[in-house]
Formats: sequence, structure tokens, C-alpha cells
Amino acid sequence: MKGKLYGVGVGPGDPELITLKAKRILEQVDYIAVPKTAEGKESLALKIVKGAVEVEKEIIELLFPMSYESKVLEEGWSKAVESLKSKLDAGKSIALITLGDPSVYSTYIYVHKILEKQDYDTEMIPGIPSFCASAARAGISLGENKETIAVIPSAYECEELDHILDEFDNVVLMKVSRNFNLLREKLAEKNLDSSAVIVSKCGLEDENIEFDLKKIDEEKLSYFSTVIVKKAGMDKK
Amino acid sequence: MKGKLYGVGVGPGDPELITLKAKRILEQVDYIAVPKTAEGKESLALKIVKGAVEVEKEIIELLFPMSYESKVLEEGWSKAVESLKSKLDAGKSIALITLGDPSVYSTYIYVHKILEKQDYDTEMIPGIPSFCASAARAGISLGENKETIAVIPSAYECEELDHILDEFDNVVLMKVSRNFNLLREKLAEKNLDSSAVIVSKCGLEDENIEFDLKKIDEEKLSYFSTVIVKKAGMDKK
Repeated sequence: MKGKLYGVGVGPGDPELITLKAKRILEQVDYIAVPKTAEGKESLALKIVKGAVEVEKEIIELLFPMSYESKVLEEGWSKAVESLKSKLDAGKSIALITLGDPSVYSTYIYVHKILEKQDYDTEMIPGIPSFCASAARAGISLGENKETIAVIPSAYECEELDHILDEFDNVVLMKVSRNFNLLREKLAEKNLDSSAVIVSKCGLEDENIEFDLKKIDEEKLSYFSTVIVKKAGMDKK
Repeated sequence: MKGKLYGVGVGPGDPELITLKAKRILEQVDYIAVPKTAEGKESLALKIVKGAVEVEKEIIELLFPMSYESKVLEEGWSKAVESLKSKLDAGKSIALITLGDPSVYSTYIYVHKILEKQDYDTEMIPGIPSFCASAARAGISLGENKETIAVIPSAYECEELDHILDEFDNVVLMKVSRNFNLLREKLAEKNLDSSAVIVSKCGLEDENIEFDLKKIDEEKLSYFSTVIVKKAGMDKK
């Protein structure tokens, strides 16, 4: 019998945000697969897992190069799939770990789709998405009552951003480190700069939460930074 | 010293989706506070907690009536706050449990804001939001690459729904049981009805996942139902 592939969300940073289910599956599987963007690079997802689960099993490293070329990306996924299949065909189970939640902009989903179509047994284990953890750390809601929420993964290349900021009650802007200054200007133009918070490296030792966007230096901004805009304001004392 | 209030997300249904942090805090606090919409009614959030944590402590029941009148709502919050304050002032800690995540359309946030302004110590503990768990159960993503995501809490009264369905790559429609037939018609008009899935009672014994919206009977639809629309299609075999 073929083994099963789990796509396990480990949350954005704090190892305690791993779910009971994720912990059980990480303890139970034969292998843990770790996506990496470059060889030798430390994996944040694996660091999170090690903070919560005693992992003494073999790690499969999967190289997913960061690229805008779909050919490069597809080659990465295809190699990863082959590496996973050799284990699954031998009846072994694998947990592929992913930052945050596997349904929210994860690399796991590409592998999931390929293997599901080839009739492999797959299961997604939800994790805390970074925007929920960021809202909790800032002590605010992402949405109340009838309010709408928009999630924009890369503000600097979202053509409808202006309109979305006008139309939605709450807007989550992920990975804002690129062109942060332009985003800040746009929010200021719309008088939304005092209705925003930026959370960087949520749940990690060097976490930063800043309600005053003017204090942020784009040069020093972490890749793991999320801005939450609340049109109703922050409603703090 | 005053006690601390925790707003603890317990996820949408499966007790194993509780985080390690939520479990620790639920075990550690003096009281667990449970919001209810009517006296005598069983609390789903408490049922979830009991499935994962051995809770042998006093439960504080908080009555939050469902109402469209802000006066009725505010009276509910105000009574809840007084009840919590009497315990916090006595130095006791409380975990107020909430379905899903406390930042996503929870009742907790109202109590949080009132108590935070009165200088009580408060902390939000994230939970798995229902839309992440629903996507995982359906084996799909909520967003990939540069795709945008919109979350609409009550489709039947969202005036911009048409435009949002046109503009966004992915749309999460929560609590669709009211006027589901109208929503289905709208999706069909836009040729989006075969790019949608509905998940009801995610993670509970009577969970239902249906990719064919035509099979759904509005009369029998659970209040806990979420539709996910993916413009790129479901990409299943």
C-alpha cells in the first residue's frame, strides 16, 4: 500500500501555535519533508516544529527555487514530487511542513495537486495563518459584524489596490517589505495611515508591532511583514 | 493584582485543531467563560474544548443575545464585562473561548476592547479560522501566488458582492445558509457555480463537503456553512 502525504501548517512563528493534530501527525509519520528556497539555508518551518515536537526522524529537503519563471518553478515542483513519490511508493508516510496554513499561499499546494491527481492519498492539516496571529498580537480584529476582509499577497503588483482600499472595511497586505514606502504613501493619501498596523516576524524573538508606520525603515523591514488596515480605526485607548 | 483575560480561539469543530498554546492556557486559567446566544443552549465551543482538554473548572456563562439592535447587543456586552470584571478584580484568570479565531468575526473582540480600555490585561490566542479548515477538508487553496482573497461574512446583505465576485480571484462566503438559493443563482449567472465548494459543519461528525451546489437544499443547510469560490477552478481530477 502506498503511504500518505500530509501538508502540515505549522503557524507563522511561535511553536506553541502548532495544533494538536499537527503535533500528532509530525510524531507519527516516517519522514518530515522541508521545503527550502536554497540549499544550506535554515528552514524556519523546521525550526518552529523543533520548538514543539521531538523530531528524531529523517528529514527530506525539497528545493523550491524562488523564481518568476514558471519553467523553473515547475521543474522544482516536479523534482520534489519525484522525491516524495519514491518514499510514498515504498509505503512510507510524509509530513510536508509549511509556514502558516497550507491553503494560504503555500508551496505545498502545488505538490498536493500533482499527487492528488495521481491518486496518492493526501491530507491538508490547517495551521494558524500569519494574519490571524498578527491580529492577535496587535490586539485587533480582522473583521467584525458585517465587515468585509480583503487579503492581498503582494501589494506592490496589485493593480486594483486603490479600489480595494476604498471598497473593503479591512485589508490585509502580506509581504509588504518590497516597496513599503510606496504603500505607506498610498495609505497616507487615503488617510488610512493611522488606521494601520504592521507586524513583522510575528511570534519570533525579534517580533515587531508598530502602529505608527512613519517609524518603519523600508531598508530594515523583514520579508515576514504584514500590514492590517482597518477603516473603522484601531479603537485603542 | 488583577487577573488576566485570554480570548482563546478553539477552531471550527475538530478538537484536534486546538493549538498547544490554547490547550496550555485552558488548563492553566481559573475560569473558562463561554459565550451563549440563549440560556440552556449547548455551547459548540465548549464541546470542542472538552474533546481536547480535561476541564474540571468552573464555567462562566455569558449571554450574548443575537440581535440587530445595537442597544440589545451593548447591554449584552456590558453585562458580560461586569461578570468578567468581578473575577478579574479578585485576581482570577479567565479564558473566554470562541469558535474559530478571535480576530475573525468573534464576539470576544467587543469584550476585549472594553476591558483593554479599562487597563485590564488581555491576550488573544489565535485559532484556526473556519475558512482555512474548510479549504483543507476540500483539499484546495484559498489563494496561490499573486491571487487575491475576499472574505464576506454575510453574502445576502453585501451590496458589493457582484463586483467582488468579478474582481477577486478567490472569495470566501461565510454563513451562507440565509438566502443560499439567491447566492447559487448569482454564481451560476457568473459561470462560477462549478468553481465553488460548500463546506458545512467543518470537522464535526455531520460535516458535508459538496462541489456540486445544485445538490444543496437551502432548507436543510446548517448555519455553519462556508462557500469558497475559486475563479481559476477547483483543479481536481
